[in-house]
Amino acid sequence: MFRGIYAPIPTPFNRDGEIEWPPLRDNLKWWGQSSLQGLVVAGTNGEAVLLDWEEKVKLFSFVREFAPTGKKVIAGTGCESAKATERLNKAAADCGADAVLVLNPSYFKGSMNDDLLKNYYFHIAENSSLPVILYNMPRNTALNMSSKLVCALSEHPNIVGIKDSSGNIVQIGEIIDNTAEDFSLFAGSANFLLPALVLGAVGGTLALANIMPEECAKIQKHFDEGDLNRAKEMQLSLLEINDAVTTRWGVAGLKAALDQIGLYGGPPRLPLLSLAAEEAEQLKEIMRRNRFL
Amino acid sequence: MFRGIYAPIPTPFNRDGEIEWPPLRDNLKWWGQSSLQGLVVAGTNGEAVLLDWEEKVKLFSFVREFAPTGKKVIAGTGCESAKATERLNKAAADCGADAVLVLNPSYFKGSMNDDLLKNYYFHIAENSSLPVILYNMPRNTALNMSSKLVCALSEHPNIVGIKDSSGNIVQIGEIIDNTAEDFSLFAGSANFLLPALVLGAVGGTLALANIMPEECAKIQKHFDEGDLNRAKEMQLSLLEINDAVTTRWGVAGLKAALDQIGLYGGPPRLPLLSLAAEEAEQLKEIMRRNRFL
Amino acid sequence: MFRGIYAPIPTPFNRDGEIEWPPLRDNLKWWGQSSLQGLVVAGTNGEAVLLDWEEKVKLFSFVREFAPTGKKVIAGTGCESAKATERLNKAAADCGADAVLVLNPSYFKGSMNDDLLKNYYFHIAENSSLPVILYNMPRNTALNMSSKLVCALSEHPNIVGIKDSSGNIVQIGEIIDNTAEDFSLFAGSANFLLPALVLGAVGGTLALANIMPEECAKIQKHFDEGDLNRAKEMQLSLLEINDAVTTRWGVAGLKAALDQIGLYGGPPRLPLLSLAAEEAEQLKEIMRRNRFL
Amino acid sequence: MFRGIYAPIPTPFNRDGEIEWPPLRDNLKWWGQSSLQGLVVAGTNGEAVLLDWEEKVKLFSFVREFAPTGKKVIAGTGCESAKATERLNKAAADCGADAVLVLNPSYFKGSMNDDLLKNYYFHIAENSSLPVILYNMPRNTALNMSSKLVCALSEHPNIVGIKDSSGNIVQIGEIIDNTAEDFSLFAGSANFLLPALVLGAVGGTLALANIMPEECAKIQKHFDEGDLNRAKEMQLSLLEINDAVTTRWGVAGLKAALDQIGLYGGPPRLPLLSLAAEEAEQLKEIMRRNRFL
Repeated sequence: MFRGIYAPIPTPFNRDGEIEWPPLRDNLKWWGQSSLQGLVVAGTNGEAVLLDWEEKVKLFSFVREFAPTGKKVIAGTGCESAKATERLNKAAADCGADAVLVLNPSYFKGSMNDDLLKNYYFHIAENSSLPVILYNMPRNTALNMSSKLVCALSEHPNIVGIKDSSGNIVQIGEIIDNTAEDFSLFAGSANFLLPALVLGAVGGTLALANIMPEECAKIQKHFDEGDLNRAKEMQLSLLEINDAVTTRWGVAGLKAALDQIGLYGGPPRLPLLSLAAEEAEQLKEIMRRNRFL
Repeated sequence: MFRGIYAPIPTPFNRDGEIEWPPLRDNLKWWGQSSLQGLVVAGTNGEAVLLDWEEKVKLFSFVREFAPTGKKVIAGTGCESAKATERLNKAAADCGADAVLVLNPSYFKGSMNDDLLKNYYFHIAENSSLPVILYNMPRNTALNMSSKLVCALSEHPNIVGIKDSSGNIVQIGEIIDNTAEDFSLFAGSANFLLPALVLGAVGGTLALANIMPEECAKIQKHFDEGDLNRAKEMQLSLLEINDAVTTRWGVAGLKAALDQIGLYGGPPRLPLLSLAAEEAEQLKEIMRRNRFL
Repeated sequence: MFRGIYAPIPTPFNRDGEIEWPPLRDNLKWWGQSSLQGLVVAGTNGEAVLLDWEEKVKLFSFVREFAPTGKKVIAGTGCESAKATERLNKAAADCGADAVLVLNPSYFKGSMNDDLLKNYYFHIAENSSLPVILYNMPRNTALNMSSKLVCALSEHPNIVGIKDSSGNIVQIGEIIDNTAEDFSLFAGSANFLLPALVLGAVGGTLALANIMPEECAKIQKHFDEGDLNRAKEMQLSLLEINDAVTTRWGVAGLKAALDQIGLYGGPPRLPLLSLAAEEAEQLKEIMRRNRFL
Repeated sequence: MFRGIYAPIPTPFNRDGEIEWPPLRDNLKWWGQSSLQGLVVAGTNGEAVLLDWEEKVKLFSFVREFAPTGKKVIAGTGCESAKATERLNKAAADCGADAVLVLNPSYFKGSMNDDLLKNYYFHIAENSSLPVILYNMPRNTALNMSSKLVCALSEHPNIVGIKDSSGNIVQIGEIIDNTAEDFSLFAGSANFLLPALVLGAVGGTLALANIMPEECAKIQKHFDEGDLNRAKEMQLSLLEINDAVTTRWGVAGLKAALDQIGLYGGPPRLPLLSLAAEEAEQLKEIMRRNRFL
């Protein structure tokens, strides 16, 4: 049902740190005409932790309104507290989102054992009218959800998949091997999309898909058509630029890249800072070297 | 000015996860009669990340109202976004708090380099009418603020101290050695209070001080009076119970201990869970063994 | 040249911790008749760090003598000191080994920067008559050799490949993408063999290949023949047993599994301990459940 | 019995990487006239992992011969294998050493649970005629021995103490609080010597003591005499130079510092490299700034 490539879209701000709606509409138009299967709103690259409640809800509603009907909209709703997540799930449903992407709470790391997280996610899933997709992002949460935990969570009928950004390909294999056929695993970064597809992933939710939706989609297309060589070539060719807009420069890098290809990136919100001029130049050079500019 | 022992107070909830104000008032009365120098509101043990804006502000105001005038009130205000932190700092000032305790943002770990954090904290300090105390809590944030960074931050006139919960005694020494006389370092946990005092810390902000304020205060008193042997004995005797209400069982353990000594602990908020009956029994046993019950 | 699947063979000991040569000969006969491309002697699973110099040299010589001529023999020679590694490389050459596998030094972690490691490996490669294969094993060394470093090392003409046991599939992609065609990457564990092959790995050096050489070899065979579905099924079916003889129970687990399939495993050397009876039973159950017994 | 400050002495090499005995004799003369309680031979700073068996034994014997009778000699004997450690313990006894310092095995990290390590250390202690001192060095081994494990080990009558280089002051408190009076804890680095003494440590085994034995000894002397202020001042004044010859530049830094104060440092063994000229200059500057040159 959710098969394919998704872009976790950045939230456009102006210099005062306020959301800029018109450029978001323009971006949505561009993404809407692409091969993307859908969009993730208020995920990590949407700077969700820097948005307040009203902003998130308005984003869900705005994106659903201005994204083409055919494109799925997945709302990022995971907060530290169950109450806040539940409330946001309700709002996402009211806004017409197709699913919610729920990052695990992580602040109280020492307490986040498997039993607690199972209790949490089952509670959330019970109380959500939208299907729940798990979101494992250890690079930001410093907490990995093990394959064993994910398999246990997958048994809830309203938990339908996972975006795994761990990049741990063994864990990805274990999840696919030990969950039901209809539990969907999405690669959480373009740099391990093909390996994940080979093991049975159904798609990806990829920062890179914001700026190179066709290239990302082609990896899956080549793979689906059995053209493993071209899939591999495309996969390897995306590694450097993907690193630049994720690990190396994060959201600021992704936004700078959006600006460089003619969409609206703009500045991130404080405490995040825009790329320095020199870094933006290096990014441009990487884009050029890989023939994306 | 802020010298002494502080309790980072838990937020009391009922079974529905709503704040219970009357028992908080009773707790405040007990803490108010103790040797504590003051209280920290909406810190880690206050489950700050599980509270919403209105709840935090009401807590600041309520605690200021019902804590004795002589006790300092420090408001935990650090959020992921600069905007949210600034706004909360203003509210804390309006509520009559004495200082703000600002945890560093940490979700975008890969971007949180020293330059960014310096820009962030200087921005926050510029825009706060209350003195700013840094809060380093790597066990929860998975991000340590180095002594080098802290020394750079200490140069801002409105950044007056740090609660260092790292437990890294070398880092603590480096901070004390390289900051001005009037920059105050507080031990962030009772289990390294004495070693920190020996190197020049001026006090502590200690989960344990919620249930054993006199014992914690005595470590500092013995130390101040040059009675190092008694200070050491008290320090060593607190290690096991401190571990139980911090590392081992966290907020749930601290709340259970409050219940066991006749104050109101109550349940933590979801996703956190109360201690299982068996764990509460083990806690009681530890309290008894160390003669605190 | 080294393409294919290798078994990093365990060193058989008796109850007194002395090497047992006759059972090693029997094991070698069995491996010799398998689809394995060759054997790695004195690697991690050979308990290299528990062997002395004379034992290692005798092992190189014995394995070369009793393994079929067609099978390659790769000698594990990495020591902490350059001098010891060099000396062992000479001995390996004298024993007729085909290549040396050189684990990076790691004890002085704080000093092991890229410049130092480049100086080290170039020095080793200059002074080795056998081709050098790098060995990256961060789970044991607590030190990862980055793709950037590996690419720099690959420029030495006598450094011909790497066994990467990191399991980091992005790093594997980056190495393959940025090294010359004739630089060979081997997956260091069976649990990510297929993903590595898909990105361009030429084989694997796999603990699991000691007990299931045909199954491991079939992953590569199916992949080479374009039968990705069967390759994937075989890959997924090996995850649980592979975990048992690597991450979960290590060398002791691998040796117990050898005993269970009728080869000689025997006890590991102290400080390592044999599996407890109960663990051996669990291992047998895993073997049965996956139809390997 | 072992109370006081020890220097873990570096092994002097010439440019060819061979041990230089005459300068070692000169160094021993200088250390012999200092306030040091004794010397540790073939520890981390002695580059033990880069020495072979014969070199270690000759070092034990040479140091015992040329160190003054009153100075204790502690032999570093921990190897990865029990057999090798046992054999080295016998040699150390034959050479007249006073005790052995036994680093835990660490290569097979995944297997090194508390039960295994207890079995290992009890086996070693049974078979050693010299008293055994544990050596916890997680920065190099990437494996910490917990206070719980250390307390269990302390129950063996021939395990008499620990050199704890973790710097974890809480763990140090827990060990002291839960071991018998006659179990001796030594701080493993000068940068937390005073905090450790305050909690009950009986001395330190300190890289820095090689170049500043009197300053290190004075921390303990001031502490013993109840002059906590001077102890603290000395402690804080040593942090920067200690960092330079441990964390920052390691053995190479320590050897350069020895050269700078007129003793023999010389080059470390490959793969380790001497400080670059620029780094040596920075070190000299730090020495000067802290008035040690």
